[in-house]
Amino acid sequence: MEIIKALEWRYAVKKFDSSKQLNEQKVTMLKNAFNLTATSYGLQPVKLLVICDKSVQKKLRAAAFNQAQVEDASHVLIFCVEKGIDAEYIRSYFNRVKEIRKTPENILEPFQNFLIDDFEKKSKEDIYNWATNQAYLAMGNMLTVCALGGIDACPMEGFSATDYDAILDLKSKNLQSVLIMPVGYRAEDDFMAELKKVRKPLEDSVIDFNS
Amino acid sequence: MEIIKALEWRYAVKKFDSSKQLNEQKVTMLKNAFNLTATSYGLQPVKLLVICDKSVQKKLRAAAFNQAQVEDASHVLIFCVEKGIDAEYIRSYFNRVKEIRKTPENILEPFQNFLIDDFEKKSKEDIYNWATNQAYLAMGNMLTVCALGGIDACPMEGFSATDYDAILDLKSKNLQSVLIMPVGYRAEDDFMAELKKVRKPLEDSVIDFNS
Repeated sequence: MEIIKALEWRYAVKKFDSSKQLNEQKVTMLKNAFNLTATSYGLQPVKLLVICDKSVQKKLRAAAFNQAQVEDASHVLIFCVEKGIDAEYIRSYFNRVKEIRKTPENILEPFQNFLIDDFEKKSKEDIYNWATNQAYLAMGNMLTVCALGGIDACPMEGFSATDYDAILDLKSKNLQSVLIMPVGYRAEDDFMAELKKVRKPLEDSVIDFNS
Repeated sequence: MEIIKALEWRYAVKKFDSSKQLNEQKVTMLKNAFNLTATSYGLQPVKLLVICDKSVQKKLRAAAFNQAQVEDASHVLIFCVEKGIDAEYIRSYFNRVKEIRKTPENILEPFQNFLIDDFEKKSKEDIYNWATNQAYLAMGNMLTVCALGGIDACPMEGFSATDYDAILDLKSKNLQSVLIMPVGYRAEDDFMAELKKVRKPLEDSVIDFNS
């Protein structure tokens, strides 16, 4: 059961080995895995920023409650949501479908119109929450991909999104940061790696439904 | 690159082979993988209901815009959020840490108190959104686990949570359904399996940040 072993090996790294870098092949694998994440309606409202620059990481660390993982990790992944999910954005998705699958316009049109209407009715906050949900799903994928690829990671919600958006000039890219994930290799002396995983007993976490 | 191959093999199944069932080993693997999902603060605010009962699946299908996957799949996974995330719930987590890791009370207490305070300040809606985010993360994990385990799946947001909660009597369990995921095996004639995956070009989805 390789999958379960990998998930048990995974933990939220407290201390990265700052001397170890992910090689190009691993970074490319992570990028492709991210782009293959399932998203609601296939709209891909989440972008990934990949940071590998100690001077930037130092600033990002300061804006994440000084958590050392952000500076010490080989790379920092920033999950960002798109701010401009509008009719034009939705049309660009359907144009991609047409181009890649050669689906005729008249087959796609009813669903395209439904989606445009549906998103026009949503508030900005609704769209932000919807996109943020997709960022969490992407992070769930990436944590498992890392585990299976022997890459250490630390999923993090605790940082100042406002500061990150400023440091990374995300406004100009029409993006907002929502989650961050330093990746790399655990330090040999990270005491967290030795601690037992804390989980509910399986029967408190999973219910076999019997009618 | 087995991981990327698995993620490319995965797609949102439109038609399951209703004659094929997941064996017990695969179902157990899925349950354990779910329980190993990372969650915010380790609080595990998400429970998984596992349904394998055609009469129930028929009702659930009707409450999911009649989407056939819900009835035809081998099993249906229902991701539910806990409704009672309160001081007692948080204490039970720290009791688990004490029990499993033998961490002394005085080490845990400051963080326990911080979390209890923090959650007491949150509105019901904040807690629901926070827990729902964790359900999406869990689904992201499970989609990838399925792909790697050769299990087909269809992630779904489109269903009536109110109807699901009633059909599955989730109120009595203090749970609310937020996501569903039929799992099993694709039908040989599912035309969706043959369609090319639609994704943004990698350079539009992932940004290498250069300062």
